[in-house]
Formats: sequence, structure tokens, C-alpha cells
Amino acid sequence: MKVGVTTSSFGDPDATPIQFLRDLGLEVVLNPYGRRLTRDEAIEFIQDLDGLIAGLEPLDRGVLSAAERLRAIARVGIGMDNVDHAAAEGLGIHGSSTPDPPTIAVAEMTVASMLSRVRCLDGHARRMRNGQWEKRVTSSLFGAVVHLVGFGRIGRKVAELLHPFGAHILVTDPFLDTSDELGGGSLVSLEEGLAKADVVSLHAAGDQVILGAREFGLMKEGALLLNSARGGLVDEQALLLAVEEGRLGGVWFDTFWKEPYEGPLLTHDAFFPTPHVSTYTAPCRSMMEAQAARNLVRDLGISGGQNG
Amino acid sequence: MKVGVTTSSFGDPDATPIQFLRDLGLEVVLNPYGRRLTRDEAIEFIQDLDGLIAGLEPLDRGVLSAAERLRAIARVGIGMDNVDHAAAEGLGIHGSSTPDPPTIAVAEMTVASMLSRVRCLDGHARRMRNGQWEKRVTSSLFGAVVHLVGFGRIGRKVAELLHPFGAHILVTDPFLDTSDELGGGSLVSLEEGLAKADVVSLHAAGDQVILGAREFGLMKEGALLLNSARGGLVDEQALLLAVEEGRLGGVWFDTFWKEPYEGPLLTHDAFFPTPHVSTYTAPCRSMMEAQAARNLVRDLGISGGQNG
Repeated sequence: MKVGVTTSSFGDPDATPIQFLRDLGLEVVLNPYGRRLTRDEAIEFIQDLDGLIAGLEPLDRGVLSAAERLRAIARVGIGMDNVDHAAAEGLGIHGSSTPDPPTIAVAEMTVASMLSRVRCLDGHARRMRNGQWEKRVTSSLFGAVVHLVGFGRIGRKVAELLHPFGAHILVTDPFLDTSDELGGGSLVSLEEGLAKADVVSLHAAGDQVILGAREFGLMKEGALLLNSARGGLVDEQALLLAVEEGRLGGVWFDTFWKEPYEGPLLTHDAFFPTPHVSTYTAPCRSMMEAQAARNLVRDLGISGGQNG
Repeated sequence: MKVGVTTSSFGDPDATPIQFLRDLGLEVVLNPYGRRLTRDEAIEFIQDLDGLIAGLEPLDRGVLSAAERLRAIARVGIGMDNVDHAAAEGLGIHGSSTPDPPTIAVAEMTVASMLSRVRCLDGHARRMRNGQWEKRVTSSLFGAVVHLVGFGRIGRKVAELLHPFGAHILVTDPFLDTSDELGGGSLVSLEEGLAKADVVSLHAAGDQVILGAREFGLMKEGALLLNSARGGLVDEQALLLAVEEGRLGGVWFDTFWKEPYEGPLLTHDAFFPTPHVSTYTAPCRSMMEAQAARNLVRDLGISGGQNG
């Protein structure tokens, strides 16, 4: 059987998952472009494959229909938006993803950015490097109100990480009701959470705007806003205005309306940007690659995959 | 009865603990200098006090002997090194401190600095602000080996905060043996811990050098070193050499050999300094001040202190 890999960094620097597939007797072909495949390149690449370890190339009905032998798609990552599930199911193609490693990595990055903003690490270091010794008092997560907007895998993991810091957790999620297990948090409306929170962190799905001018008006003066989910959850102009007016204590975004992001928020000290790297950790990548390889082998019905 | 307060920031901005003392009928005098008192100033200030809410001014036998009415010293903070305990006991003066709030604040600051270094937040933000969109892979606390040197209150709290991140905790503490409760950590020698750790964090007491040239030679290439305890635990020249040679992945110090610190480490990007502010959070200060006021009132035998 022949399997292909379209995630361009797969097996680099640790080739273990590629070797795992080859040791099972599979022919393995790698992405020859070093970047995300276009639709036409994807059609060409997958046409004679039995299995695909997939990145974010478009795998719509037309592309999938062109791959007559394809029986399994294993996504390296948390999202499957690029795969037409109905088409895959109709064509008898198994789909899988690897949500656990990125959940851990994104939650860790969120708490890292939260703590770094709350304790004003950058300002302290910058002043000391400039020869200023100023012992400023900052806030703390202890006793702070943290509002998690969206309480799926990542929001729950963030709550779990925050628990020992002594933060009060508020949760907004339209898919939950008060009888759900909230890990010590309290379910509130979006409006109540925004009005009470010292820190607002977005972990919602979808592309609908959640925070616009009205919602920024509800937030506490000096609150922090964190976004590791999607740029599109926030109205860019409303955020820019709130930052320009100094109404937010700090903003961290790892995800943007258009990437690479080069917009006007970058010029503001209160805006702390990272280039969509919340899942870019060495253990996250190696765990995702290993799991995707095992998932593919399992879905191709090859023995050895369960224990690999 | 008359009580004095030498911590210069006490009751600012929240005057609740001063009001608490006055509401009990106590005369309260505040530090008139706006800074730490000298020995002579301390003798003058405390001579007619019944109780003292103390900062870090020297309270040796000579100073304490000059205050004939003094019956209680309540330190705002974790350390009591500035108080001669034997002299105080001999003079019938009760001593107290407020270790819990600073324990939480220092542990939080340590984990904030650890996560910020591990996920390379500064480098990501700096490159984005410079127009570079580079999705670099970093390390993670998940699966990382964190070596805690010193496992008192703060080391234990750091271990508790790190637990849900999936880090492996190694502990070195000469006062512990393997039968002690280590919160999921493993007791190791200093040498074994340094050789295995991705992150070394100092939480030891005392002023003896723990890390010198020999110890830096044992550490893993690219490891992180964090010091919220005391500058003197590390040989400054050996650290400077290790940083100059690029052998450490990052260094955070909140405490220095001489403060304000203006030494050559500040010129190195790998050295991340903060100006001894690990306990400088609003909730830490208000909790410490409230506890110190309650401790003082209790030790003066005034009813109302227990519930204040």
C-alpha cells in the first residue's frame, strides 16, 4: 500500500513516524513542494494513494473523488474544516484527527500569555535594561476573574491549568447549561462575564464576531483580552479603537483576520502578537505526528497500528 | 496603645488595615521617611511603641532594647532575617510574619517567567512587530524536566502550579529524604537534577553559592535557569560566562547580588531581569497587610484581632 504525507514539516527533525510507516511495509511519499498544496496539486498528489496524512490542503468532494484507492485520511492537527466529511463518508474514506496534543499546547500558550501580561514581565525587563529600577505593583491571577468564552477541549484545559493559581473562572458557552461539569467555573451570559472579568480569553468555534464595539463597551477598564482561537471572533476596527483609547490593559492575539498579519495593531505596546504558533511546540508536533501515523494505519486495517 | 508601621507603602492604595487598627482604638503612626529606616531612625521610631508592623529595618538587640513598651512585631512579608529572634524572645516580644501571600505571588511569578521563556513569547512578539512572520517551534512544559532546588513553601507551590502542565518535577533539598511528600516530584542530588533538567529553578534559603562554574558545566545545553530566591545562590562571574558562551537557553533573575542591579548581564538578550517584584502584586500586598494587622492585634492581646 502507498501512503502520502502533505504536512510539509512531517518527520522533521524526528523521522520516527515516517520510519514507523515504512517498517510496516508501506510506501511513503512526502510533500515535494515544502508548503501547503493547491487544489490541483492535491488532486495530482493523492490520486494513487491508499492513505493520506493530511495538512490543510482542500479535500473537497472533487479532490476526494479523484483518489479511487483512498481509504483513510489522518489529519495532523485539531481541525477538519478542510475535509468534506459527507463526501469522505460517501466514498468510504475514514477520517481522523489528533486533538489532544494541540489542546495542551494552545492552553499552555494561553496561560503563558495570560501570566506574562498579568505580571507585566515585559515592562519590568524593559525598564531594567534601560537602567530603571522601578518596583511597580501588578495584578495577579490570585483572586482574578477569568472569563472563558467557549468551553470545549481548550477552554476546559485552560480552566484546569488556572485552577491552582486561585483564579475565579466564569464560562460562557451556548452549548452548555448549568448542570454541565464546569471544573469549578460558573456559567454566565457573555454580557455578565465581560462586565466582571479581569481577563477575557476566547476559545470559541466558528467565525462569527463575538466581540464588537458594544461588547468592548461592557468590559472592565484595564481588562486583558486573549485570543488563541480565531481572529474573526473579534471586530478588528472595534478592537483597534479600544486599544487606541487605552481601555484595555493588554491584548494577546495568536490568530488574525489575515495571516501574515501586518495591520495597525502591531504599533501599539498594549497589543502583544505571536504568529499563530500556539501549537508549535516540539512535544505537540511529535505527539501529533505519531498519533496521525497510528490513526492512518488503524484506519487502513493494518495490524501493528494499535500498538505503534 | 500605640502602634507604628515602618513598611513605607502600607495602606496605599487600600487603607483598610490602618482603619482596622484605628477602629480598635489604637494610635497608629506611619513611617515618615517613605523608605526603609536606618538603624538610628528605627531606634527613634519604635521607642514609645507597643506594637510594630515591620519592614526590613534592622531590629537587632540594641534597637529592640531601646523600645521598653514593645510587645509585638508583625512583619509584612515572608522573611524575619532583620529581626534578632533570641533578643526579641528574651525581651518578651512576640514575632510574626505573613508567609502565605508572598508564597503564592513568588510561585506565580516563577511559573509566569518559566512559561514565557519556554514558549519564547518575547522573540515571537519582537519579530512580528518587526514585520517578520516566522512560525518557530519552541519547547513546552509538557514532558519537560523541571528541577526545583529547594522545596520549602515556594518550591512546593511551584510544583503544585506546574503539575497540570505535564512537567516532570525533580527536587533537591538537603532537609528532605525520600519518604517525604514531594507532590509528584522525585528527590535527586543537585548533580543529577542539573544533568537532567530542561529548567532549573532556585527556591533555596541561605546565602551559600549553589551554582558555580562546576555546576553550570553539569547543566544541559540550552537549559533555562530561574532565580526568584537570592542572587547570592549563584556565582555571578560563572553565570556571566555561561551566558556569554550561549550555554543557557534563557535566564530569569528577580533577585540580585546588589540591588538596584546594573551589571553586565543586562546587556545579554538571554538574561531576562525583573526588579525584585515577585511579591509585588495587589492581592499579595493587601493580604499581607491585613494578616500583619491581625497578627499584631492578636499578639498585643486585643480582642477583635482573631476575626478582623
